[in-house]
Amino acid sequence: MNGAESLVRTLVAAGVDTCFANPGTSEMHFVSALDKVDGMRSILVLYEGVATGAADGYWRMADRPASTLLHLGPGLANGLSNIHNARKAASGMVNIIGEHASWHLAYDAPLASDIEGLARPLSDWVKTSPRSSTIGADAAQAVAEARLSRIASLILPGDTAWEEGGIIASPITPSAPPVDITAVEAAARALMNGDQAMLIIGGKATRGKALELAGRICGKTGATLATQFFTARVERGAGRVSAFRIPYFVDPALAALKGFKHIVTVETREPVAFFAYPDKPSLLKSPDAEVYQACGPRSDGLAVLEALAEALGARPSHARYQERTDTPLPSGALNQQTIAQILSALIPENAIVVDESVTTGRESFALTAGAAPHDWLQNMGGSIGFGLPVATGAAVACPDRRVISLSGDGCAMYTLQSLWTQAREGLNVTTLVFSNRAYQILRVEFAGVGAGAPGKKAAEMMSLDNPPLDFVALAKGMGVPASRVTTCEELVAAMRRDLREPGPRLIEVML
Amino acid sequence: MNGAESLVRTLVAAGVDTCFANPGTSEMHFVSALDKVDGMRSILVLYEGVATGAADGYWRMADRPASTLLHLGPGLANGLSNIHNARKAASGMVNIIGEHASWHLAYDAPLASDIEGLARPLSDWVKTSPRSSTIGADAAQAVAEARLSRIASLILPGDTAWEEGGIIASPITPSAPPVDITAVEAAARALMNGDQAMLIIGGKATRGKALELAGRICGKTGATLATQFFTARVERGAGRVSAFRIPYFVDPALAALKGFKHIVTVETREPVAFFAYPDKPSLLKSPDAEVYQACGPRSDGLAVLEALAEALGARPSHARYQERTDTPLPSGALNQQTIAQILSALIPENAIVVDESVTTGRESFALTAGAAPHDWLQNMGGSIGFGLPVATGAAVACPDRRVISLSGDGCAMYTLQSLWTQAREGLNVTTLVFSNRAYQILRVEFAGVGAGAPGKKAAEMMSLDNPPLDFVALAKGMGVPASRVTTCEELVAAMRRDLREPGPRLIEVML
Repeated sequence: MNGAESLVRTLVAAGVDTCFANPGTSEMHFVSALDKVDGMRSILVLYEGVATGAADGYWRMADRPASTLLHLGPGLANGLSNIHNARKAASGMVNIIGEHASWHLAYDAPLASDIEGLARPLSDWVKTSPRSSTIGADAAQAVAEARLSRIASLILPGDTAWEEGGIIASPITPSAPPVDITAVEAAARALMNGDQAMLIIGGKATRGKALELAGRICGKTGATLATQFFTARVERGAGRVSAFRIPYFVDPALAALKGFKHIVTVETREPVAFFAYPDKPSLLKSPDAEVYQACGPRSDGLAVLEALAEALGARPSHARYQERTDTPLPSGALNQQTIAQILSALIPENAIVVDESVTTGRESFALTAGAAPHDWLQNMGGSIGFGLPVATGAAVACPDRRVISLSGDGCAMYTLQSLWTQAREGLNVTTLVFSNRAYQILRVEFAGVGAGAPGKKAAEMMSLDNPPLDFVALAKGMGVPASRVTTCEELVAAMRRDLREPGPRLIEVML
Repeated sequence: MNGAESLVRTLVAAGVDTCFANPGTSEMHFVSALDKVDGMRSILVLYEGVATGAADGYWRMADRPASTLLHLGPGLANGLSNIHNARKAASGMVNIIGEHASWHLAYDAPLASDIEGLARPLSDWVKTSPRSSTIGADAAQAVAEARLSRIASLILPGDTAWEEGGIIASPITPSAPPVDITAVEAAARALMNGDQAMLIIGGKATRGKALELAGRICGKTGATLATQFFTARVERGAGRVSAFRIPYFVDPALAALKGFKHIVTVETREPVAFFAYPDKPSLLKSPDAEVYQACGPRSDGLAVLEALAEALGARPSHARYQERTDTPLPSGALNQQTIAQILSALIPENAIVVDESVTTGRESFALTAGAAPHDWLQNMGGSIGFGLPVATGAAVACPDRRVISLSGDGCAMYTLQSLWTQAREGLNVTTLVFSNRAYQILRVEFAGVGAGAPGKKAAEMMSLDNPPLDFVALAKGMGVPASRVTTCEELVAAMRRDLREPGPRLIEVML
């Protein structure tokens, strides 16, 4: 068995059964091994940012890592921004990055680069596997790292892949991170002491049993349950525990946190401003507030919340649940408000919403709190081009659920190649592209950073109207049926139709 | 004056008058400064790989650096693969990369990352400018580095940009790299000693006076003038000195170099295999050949060739020139051969051909040797997604010349966003996308690396036919008029029409 085959067999044995791939010459032995090994689904993407974003979406929904297959340093480079987003979301993944055969590196061939150097800033674990006999064990280690919500980047030289002597390695079960009892006790005291308190949850603590426990704790103590403005995945909607979302902009965030003397965090850190602004603070809490990190990201938030609930005597009856909101369907003009109302009414039960709608979606989260129960995924790293790939990976992980991908037009143009993979794999993704023909957020931020009013050249750097993008044509070009809507009635009709259809659809929402 | 304004003024004073930009919040003060400062053309792109590729194309045609404007670590990451290509082509550029305000870095905000760490593997010079008073001097240094054919990455924290106290710095004139007389003398002896010799030119030595001198030298000595398979920019066609192109695949390259006892290189290194293959050598020369590096990449090849010509007594009359080939226009089926014949007949005088046509273009270079004089640009780094952005930058640098952008379909999908910028700026680019609905090169390489015959899953990783891409729709979606051709007659008619039209056009060539 050659090294590549031992690698694929080790991945499959460790439960990695999906690979988002854009291979090149140096990865051909890995590709060849796919035919020899059952159990690995390989999904072709047209750009590596789609692969790494899809692995992020897959992790968030499956709670286990996918692999990516990337072609040398540049292939990795193309995937880095969505690796950044995944890492900030504490999504684990195993990147397999091809490399020239070891003896070829001395010659500085065109595609040679410092792959480890490129991988290191955004990976938690990096290794070049030197021999066909080591790649199996290295792959098992990479999967174990990924299972700990980490980015593992395993570099596969050509000779490591094609030489005989591959050894399949057994899966390594990573041990769960321990609960810091002292931190839990401090958090419990803070929540009990009578002052106004906030419990901020993130990571995997915003869903399932953990979310339920957080609801009990807040019901019992009177603390406010909150999430950061961006959370990797929130289970929400009717019948679930609902959390307050801390605002994006600094001034409303400061106002929202004012008065909270105690802030307890679970699988997240204390709230900070997304960007720096002149004369505004980076920390959003009140100056007199104390922060208690019950556990940070990549921790076992469920175990921490269990311990916290027990310490506080929080019982099931303490939790309160979101009621279903009957949002009337709006008519007429499409805007932030009416779009949010339509979403609230039409999100199907158990849908997965991937939100990169930026300015247009500003109202959508709040107004869908009482929609049918669903999952909502947000961009934790702030690098745009996150939404369409994450929706792709989420749909691969959950073939029986409907994915609704909300994207600004500027964002969609980053990794639009996702649509082709959605069509190829017949994924149930309904993409709404909000066409305001602008980097609208920058118009807001321009003033926010004190740059004054934009002149002609600055205004051009934020405008996408010349020429206008035609997303119906772009989707058609990648095999995804699409339509364009200009009114609420048209959006409602298009969503009602498309959400029932198997496979991907795109709706261009004109603003 | 704030730091951002001093930065833009310093760039303009140093002759950097073009910025390929995709800004975000942290770069708003730079954007604002564009309105205050005359002389900087800012060109918006929808993806950072377009910006860095365009800067590469701009350098190759203008022989001076453009700047890019990139949003934090992820924005840089998205541009890295075309920075890799540019660096391998010895193209200089100045990357301006926004960063959070210094005080904000402690808080690990969503977009925070190790920007210097990301920049370093593919940059020749990296600096974070700490204060508004330093950014001017740092920018002057960055431009000086870029003028030496280097990648300069200058990181601009928000507070450096927005605080007052900016100081415009004077341009720094980098000194030309010295000629190594000993190396020139050794090369001269090798070319004169009667054995079969080859002179391989690269960098800026494949055009203008340097190319002419290389022709004289080979005419005088009987050496074979050659280029690598990939060269950054070759001036060629009727009336110019013509060079032999070393083949891509190892076996024909070994055969072509067999018998050459002396290999002299100017602005390039000895030929090496593009990829490693089991049981094939990395070095392409005969085992008994000697290599004389008269000068390496980023050197003053013109001065070296002048010295070499003088040492050898090579005079103008020694040069031989390519004659115009009268290629008859083919009819019927489109294939490598007929496409090359059509190009040979129709490339307009003084056109710029950017070649990322991979398998379909295999015959094009050889068969256009006697076309009307033109420039031919190739991908030096091997990272696909090079062609459309480089064509964009070349067209910005040379508004009076026609750019012909040849792209495989797989390549085109990497940085297709280039089309939008071409439309926005009205650039005279005619793009031919060769639609074979496959990563055809991989089908060849699969066998080459000894992976055998692809099974079903492997075959799927090289196939782009499900769903087929519709480049006419994709171009339309970005505002570029497009047509589809299926025969030689249709391609001829489309090229005759489109090459006369101002602004961009795309032709989807069905194979």
